[in-house]
Amino acid sequence: MQSYKDLFVGYITNLQDKITENLEILDSKEKFIEETWDRVGGGGGRTRVLSNGRVLEKAGVNISIVHGKLPDSAMNQLKVKEANFFACGISLVIHPKNPFVPTVHANFRYFELYNDKQELVDQWFGGGSDLTPYYYFKADATHFHQENKNVCDQFDLKFYPKFKKACDDYFYNHHRKESRGIGGLFIDYLRPSEKHSMEFYFNFITSLADNFLPSYLPIVEKRNKIEYENNHKNWQELRRGRYVEFNLIHDKGTLFGLKTGGRIESILMSLPPKVQWTYNFIPKVNSKEEELIFILTNPIILNLK
Amino acid sequence: MQSYKDLFVGYITNLQDKITENLEILDSKEKFIEETWDRVGGGGGRTRVLSNGRVLEKAGVNISIVHGKLPDSAMNQLKVKEANFFACGISLVIHPKNPFVPTVHANFRYFELYNDKQELVDQWFGGGSDLTPYYYFKADATHFHQENKNVCDQFDLKFYPKFKKACDDYFYNHHRKESRGIGGLFIDYLRPSEKHSMEFYFNFITSLADNFLPSYLPIVEKRNKIEYENNHKNWQELRRGRYVEFNLIHDKGTLFGLKTGGRIESILMSLPPKVQWTYNFIPKVNSKEEELIFILTNPIILNLK
Repeated sequence: MQSYKDLFVGYITNLQDKITENLEILDSKEKFIEETWDRVGGGGGRTRVLSNGRVLEKAGVNISIVHGKLPDSAMNQLKVKEANFFACGISLVIHPKNPFVPTVHANFRYFELYNDKQELVDQWFGGGSDLTPYYYFKADATHFHQENKNVCDQFDLKFYPKFKKACDDYFYNHHRKESRGIGGLFIDYLRPSEKHSMEFYFNFITSLADNFLPSYLPIVEKRNKIEYENNHKNWQELRRGRYVEFNLIHDKGTLFGLKTGGRIESILMSLPPKVQWTYNFIPKVNSKEEELIFILTNPIILNLK
Repeated sequence: MQSYKDLFVGYITNLQDKITENLEILDSKEKFIEETWDRVGGGGGRTRVLSNGRVLEKAGVNISIVHGKLPDSAMNQLKVKEANFFACGISLVIHPKNPFVPTVHANFRYFELYNDKQELVDQWFGGGSDLTPYYYFKADATHFHQENKNVCDQFDLKFYPKFKKACDDYFYNHHRKESRGIGGLFIDYLRPSEKHSMEFYFNFITSLADNFLPSYLPIVEKRNKIEYENNHKNWQELRRGRYVEFNLIHDKGTLFGLKTGGRIESILMSLPPKVQWTYNFIPKVNSKEEELIFILTNPIILNLK
């Protein structure tokens, strides 16, 4: 029988192809540029970035398959004592050009830890995706969450509320007291238990990952038709600043990459292409910009099936 | 006799006026906008920001005078066990419009710690300034460092080499393996000792602060005349991304402000107005852009008097 390590590496390698092919069709102007890289200490990755497209201002879809000794700082972060690790995953961030199209992030990953004799002592799956709009459309939020919920409900009815809440808790800019976006799913430490096997979790995570494109592409196709002006673009670039703040101050994935000596340009491909920091910008009363701030500082209630 | 607390609060309040007046004369188009703010827990500040000027794209000059209980996270950061603190300082960051004019940062500060009976148990001065060019001019680096060295040498010949090295060590983007800029001085924990009194250190820090404008303004006046094109501006905005990375990932001052509940817009006024992250940008061989990277990854040798 194949190990989950091999199975998942094969899965994410194919998924990267599928996602980048579909995004190239969507963009219909620019192509992804690929770079493969090796990690000092073990493993490497394959980074694909599309820049200055018709629809996509910057999109990065990265796979990494790394292993070796875990640095102390990363052990503290993972709260584990074992020093040998294997980690693989696919990570993507899409920054569309049109400010009415939301940014999306997704990540699906698998970890193994070993003792000094290289025996497997721990393993888990993780993943999820989340949406960061610059203008709020309830229909888009409903579509994105419903798609995620549909997959979750096929596996365990407790999953959607649990992982949705974990996402709200995780993607929160504490220093701003606002959410990064309108949420999605955040899943970590899916370890085999009496209730669910590794096979069950492998099927769950890959089903979610398979459903990433249907959860996002219809939103892009719908909102990309809206005409926008400079003030919408400035607002998008200002809000992208909050995205940068989250990724550099709070995001454990980014910090894990920096600590374990990942390739810097691959880790920071998540950062938006053009960003503004305008001192103390306050949106006009009753504007669409003010509505977004309200949404990011108050829980959204969606009617999901 | 006045306490150093009162003396230094008076000093930084006047210095903020002097610096913003001089910067308004330099810019000759836009004025600083002022906001005063209160800190929950004690104290507050006065933030002044000038945006979209003729010379200055964004300049922030902030004073803060805060006190109260020190949060646990800040105690760990300062490596102290006392829970009551007073801190005051002036902090400024100037992001010029012309990419041939360097960004500058300066900060001059004073701390006191008290025990449960509100008795003074520790006190220190800190401060310094540092320069971040987008294009390297040896004459500018020499002028800036010579000005700082002249002040240091009046007080103690050991100061310049010591605090210059501390600056190089501090303003370093470890994840990029490059310096944020071309250095300056970084001074911390100037506590009274057998060798030097608090009065000595008060005079030293205020002399350095008095000399901030002469160390920087002549460089602005000289380089602001150089004509630039879009490619220079893009390079400036890309390099500003490294500035953001330093401030959000590594800068203790920023993290201290966020942890102690400072006013978020005042703390993050240091962030540049417009920033770009271009995936894996590599400057052309033998270009001025490549020269900057060389300077930031190798120690500069200047002939100072």
